[in-house]
Amino acid sequence: MDVVSRVVVTPVAFRDPPLLNVVGVHQPWALRAVVEVHATDGLVGLGETYADEAHLARLEAVAAVLPGCPVYDLHGLRRLVADVLGRETGGAGASFGGMLDVSSALDTVYSPFEVAYLDLQGRVAGVPVSDLLGGAVRDRVPFSGYLFYKWAGHPGGEPDAWGAALDPDQVVAQARRMVDGWGFGSLKLKGGVFPPEEECEAVEALRGAFPALPLRLDPNGAWTVETSLKVADRLAGVVEYLEDPTPGIDGMARVSTGTDVPLATNMCVIAMEHLPPAIAADAVQIVLSDHHLWGGLRRSALLAGITETFGLGLSMHSNSHLGVSLAAMTHLAAATGNLTYACDTHYPWKTQDLIVPGVLEFEDGAVTVPTTPGLGVELDRDMLAVLHEQYLTCGVRRREDTVYMRSIEPGFEPNTRRW
Amino acid sequence: MDVVSRVVVTPVAFRDPPLLNVVGVHQPWALRAVVEVHATDGLVGLGETYADEAHLARLEAVAAVLPGCPVYDLHGLRRLVADVLGRETGGAGASFGGMLDVSSALDTVYSPFEVAYLDLQGRVAGVPVSDLLGGAVRDRVPFSGYLFYKWAGHPGGEPDAWGAALDPDQVVAQARRMVDGWGFGSLKLKGGVFPPEEECEAVEALRGAFPALPLRLDPNGAWTVETSLKVADRLAGVVEYLEDPTPGIDGMARVSTGTDVPLATNMCVIAMEHLPPAIAADAVQIVLSDHHLWGGLRRSALLAGITETFGLGLSMHSNSHLGVSLAAMTHLAAATGNLTYACDTHYPWKTQDLIVPGVLEFEDGAVTVPTTPGLGVELDRDMLAVLHEQYLTCGVRRREDTVYMRSIEPGFEPNTRRW
Repeated sequence: MDVVSRVVVTPVAFRDPPLLNVVGVHQPWALRAVVEVHATDGLVGLGETYADEAHLARLEAVAAVLPGCPVYDLHGLRRLVADVLGRETGGAGASFGGMLDVSSALDTVYSPFEVAYLDLQGRVAGVPVSDLLGGAVRDRVPFSGYLFYKWAGHPGGEPDAWGAALDPDQVVAQARRMVDGWGFGSLKLKGGVFPPEEECEAVEALRGAFPALPLRLDPNGAWTVETSLKVADRLAGVVEYLEDPTPGIDGMARVSTGTDVPLATNMCVIAMEHLPPAIAADAVQIVLSDHHLWGGLRRSALLAGITETFGLGLSMHSNSHLGVSLAAMTHLAAATGNLTYACDTHYPWKTQDLIVPGVLEFEDGAVTVPTTPGLGVELDRDMLAVLHEQYLTCGVRRREDTVYMRSIEPGFEPNTRRW
Repeated sequence: MDVVSRVVVTPVAFRDPPLLNVVGVHQPWALRAVVEVHATDGLVGLGETYADEAHLARLEAVAAVLPGCPVYDLHGLRRLVADVLGRETGGAGASFGGMLDVSSALDTVYSPFEVAYLDLQGRVAGVPVSDLLGGAVRDRVPFSGYLFYKWAGHPGGEPDAWGAALDPDQVVAQARRMVDGWGFGSLKLKGGVFPPEEECEAVEALRGAFPALPLRLDPNGAWTVETSLKVADRLAGVVEYLEDPTPGIDGMARVSTGTDVPLATNMCVIAMEHLPPAIAADAVQIVLSDHHLWGGLRRSALLAGITETFGLGLSMHSNSHLGVSLAAMTHLAAATGNLTYACDTHYPWKTQDLIVPGVLEFEDGAVTVPTTPGLGVELDRDMLAVLHEQYLTCGVRRREDTVYMRSIEPGFEPNTRRW
C-alpha cells in the first residue's frame, strides 16, 4: 500500500485581465495553489485550488499531517481534513471575489488533496483518472467560450491583447477571437455589469454573429425577480440557459415558475445541503458542478448522480485556473455521462501555465482527454518557480474584486439585485 | 490496459429451509449465479447474483459480448448491458419471490459484472474493493440476525437443524441460536406471515429475551395503513424501525405522517427513479440498499450519497446468498460511512458455500473486512461444481414462493395488505 511521504503546497500568481463582474473587476493577478502529494513509491499526485490566504493556511495545516496516510483512503483523508479544520468558522476561506458564501471549508480544502490522491491512484494502477471515475464516455470534452465585459487594460498598465469589451460590438469581437482561436462551439457571457437591456443587446448581437452557437448569460444575481422574468421573456429561444439571474433559492424559484427558459446556478446551489431545498422548490433546472467547490471529483460524480436522479441538467463552472485544474475538469467531464452542456473555462484568459505543454490543447473548442496514467499532466518546474515568484512579489493575497474596483471607482457598490 | 478475455456464468443451487413470508415460503433450493470475469493478465474477478431463468439468459447474453472490453470501463459496461437488453421488457428477470416489481433489468444484470470488474480492478492495483469505494471507514461490518417464521422442515423432507418457528417462544429460540452461534448484535424478524398481533407478540418476546438488542420487523406490506399505525403505536420504542408495513410510496407516506417510528423500505424504493417521489412524500426514513438490485457497488455508493444528502437513513437488504455476495456487501458496507444500521444477511441459513473458507467469518455478529486485493475471496472449484450439479438436478429454475406454497396449501393467497 502506497502512503503519502510528503506534501508540498505552492501558491502561484498569474496575470489576469480586468474582467468585469457583478462585484467588481478581476485584480491584475489571479492566485492558485498547487498541491503535490508525494508517495512512498516515488510517484507524485497533483491538485490545484484557490490560494486566498485563509485557504492557503488550511491547505498547509492539512499538508503537515498527511505523511503516512494511504493514498487510497479518501474517506480517511476527508475525516483528517475535518479534524484539522476542527471548529474553525469563517466559511470556505476562498472569497470567490465576494460572490459566493460557502458555510464550510471542508469541501474546498479536501478537494485538491482528493484530486492528488486520485492522480496517484491512477499512476499506481496505470490508468487515467477518468477510469477511476468509471471510464470516459467521450474522448473529447467540449468547453464554452467565456466572454467578459472588460477594460482594455488594468488602470495604469498596458492594454492586454484582448482590448476593451464594453458594448455589443466589442463583445462580438471578443467572441470572434475566442471562436477563431479555440474553436468554441458555445459561448457564455458574464453579465451583471451593465443594465440588463445592454446585456440583452450583447447576447442578441452574439446570436446574430453566431447563429448556430448555444449562448448563455450569467449576471450573478444582478437582477430582481421581475427583471429576471422580463429578460427571460426577451431571451427565450436565444439562450440555452440563464445562469443565476437573481440571488437565492426562493428568488430563483419565483423566476422558474414564470418562464420556460431553463435556469442554471452556481450561486444558490453550491453544496450538497442546498440540493434538497432547491429541488423541493423547483428553483433551478441546471446545476453547475465545480470539483474545487463541491469537494473533489468523487463528490462531483455524486452531484452528477443526484442531478440525473432528480431530472436536473448538469453543467460545469470555472474560476480562473491553470492546467492541473483543467486536467481534473477534463477527466471529470469525460466520465460524467449526463454532463451534456459544454463546460465553462477561464483557460484562454491566462498567458502562463505551470504544466508541461503538449497535452490539454484546445481543438474545435474541446480538449482531448489524456489517456496516460493519472491526470496525465506533469509540472513544469521552471514555470512553477516563475509563477511562485510572481506570487511572492505581486502583493495580492486574496481575491478581492470589490476592493480592487473601489480603488478605481471609489463609490462602487456590487450590482447584486441592482436592476 | 487489462481487458476481458472470457466470462463464465455458473448457475448454482443450495438447500434453503422453509422460510415463510408474505408471498409464501422459500423453495427447498435457492438459486444464485456466479459470474467469473477473466482478464488478459490472468486475473479473475467475481460477481454473484440471482439465477432465475430469465435473468440467467440475460447474464449469458452479456457474457458473450464482454471479451475485449477494458476492465476499468464501468460506463461502457453499463452501455453494453443496456444494448444487449435492448427493448426487452418483463422487468428485472429475477422474481424476488413475487414481492418486488422492478421495471428495468439494467441494474440487476449490470450488477454482478460491475462487482467482478471492481474485483479485477482491486487485483490489478493490489488494493481491496473497499479502497476503490473510497476506503473502509470500519474494519468490521455488523450484520443483523435474520429471523424467520418457518416450518420444521420442507413437507416430505427431514426437519432441518433449526426446527419450527411458528410462535413467539420458537422465534425467541431461533434468535437464541442466531445470537449464540453468530454473535449478532441486532435482530430482524421477517413478518407478514401471521396476524399482526401475533407478530407483535413475537417482537415483544424478543425484546424481553434480548433487552439490549435493536429489533426490526418486516411484514413486506402485509398491513393496511390503519393496521400499520396501530402496530407502530404498539411497537414504538421497541423496534428501531418498521420495514414496509404497507405497500407503496403513498401508503408508506400516510403511515409516516401518523407515527414517529422510523419506516424503512426495500419495496417502495428499490430503484433511483423511486427516490424523488418518496422524498417528496416523506414516505420513508430509511432506505435499504442492495447492490444486486440497485446496479452494483458504485451505484449503491450513489444511493448512500443521496440518502445522506436528503437526510435519510441507510440500511442494507439481503436475499438468500453465498460468499461472493457477502464479500461484496462487506466491502460496500465498510466503505459507506452513513450505513449506520447493521446489514441484513441470510448467510446463516445456508449450509454450503462456494468460496474458499477462512475469510468472512462471523465474530460478534460482524465480518472482518478483507484487506487482500479485490473482494478478497476465491472460488472453491470443487464446491462450485457441487453446487452447479445441484442446480442441474434440483429442478428449480426460478424463485416461486407462492407457487411452492400453493403446492402445499392450495388455497394460499399472498398476505399483501391482508390485515
